[in-house]
Amino acid sequence: MFVLGIDPGLTRCGYGVVERLSPRRTRAVAAGVLRTDPDAELPIRLAELQAEIRGLLHDYRPDAVAIERVLFQVNVRTAMQVGQAAGVVMAEAAASGCRVALYSPNEVKSAVVGWGGADKAQMEQMVRAQLDIEQALRPVDAADAVAVALCHLATAPMADAVADRGST
Amino acid sequence: MFVLGIDPGLTRCGYGVVERLSPRRTRAVAAGVLRTDPDAELPIRLAELQAEIRGLLHDYRPDAVAIERVLFQVNVRTAMQVGQAAGVVMAEAAASGCRVALYSPNEVKSAVVGWGGADKAQMEQMVRAQLDIEQALRPVDAADAVAVALCHLATAPMADAVADRGST
Repeated sequence: MFVLGIDPGLTRCGYGVVERLSPRRTRAVAAGVLRTDPDAELPIRLAELQAEIRGLLHDYRPDAVAIERVLFQVNVRTAMQVGQAAGVVMAEAAASGCRVALYSPNEVKSAVVGWGGADKAQMEQMVRAQLDIEQALRPVDAADAVAVALCHLATAPMADAVADRGST
Repeated sequence: MFVLGIDPGLTRCGYGVVERLSPRRTRAVAAGVLRTDPDAELPIRLAELQAEIRGLLHDYRPDAVAIERVLFQVNVRTAMQVGQAAGVVMAEAAASGCRVALYSPNEVKSAVVGWGGADKAQMEQMVRAQLDIEQALRPVDAADAVAVALCHLATAPMADAVADRGST
């Protein structure tokens, strides 16, 4: 089972693809950041993001796309842009036939580390442990996207969830 | 010149297509409302809207898409959903090669009626006068979308704007 995790954004949109090999083994397939030019017009940027997401869906054929839910931050304009980017990702993913799931930052932390108040360092440590990789995942948007994908594997269908508890 | 106006929304998304025949004549080509099921999941609804918008772009081949800008209302969740719908529309329109322009509600009123404080009835009267139609445009989301398209014709490129002033 392949899961594409997305940390949505317009200037930087993190992505991470993980594959569940068995209830006890999960592998990192790809991770990176999609960027659009902050000086370009908003519709052009959203169209660029759409094309990039479509490329990822085509290349990795994920079974599910897990997206970090947009929360309202101090900067309303930024939150709206992130929401628009997330909207484009959701539409593309659903149109491609994927199951699409949204998770709040706290849900991701709870699923990956075990509690919603975990910090960045704890998150990173658990992500690396689950994927059995030694080097740090960079950039940080890519690491966040991988964590969202792992959250989906940990919390998605009941059968997976039960298998999951056996593996952690 | 064809312009597709959009009053973005997820449950109801108004659209209106107008054609500039000459500096003095503008014709209504089509208007209506795209709906998605409020009980369906958000990604599915956004994908449905995306497919509908793609259909309109294919059918009418507009030169430009004019979208009403999303403002933050009392209900943040609704504003975010409208923003996500607008994001999907912007991405589709830009990807199809259209010029895409955003207008605030006040810009639409100023362009169509002559001042930003105009009420619904004044807007409707001016829209009908400009398009030379007698019956009321319904539903109201469709009428709003037509007004956004007219706003674009009135305010877009300088050459159009100059011609426009001669016609009003």
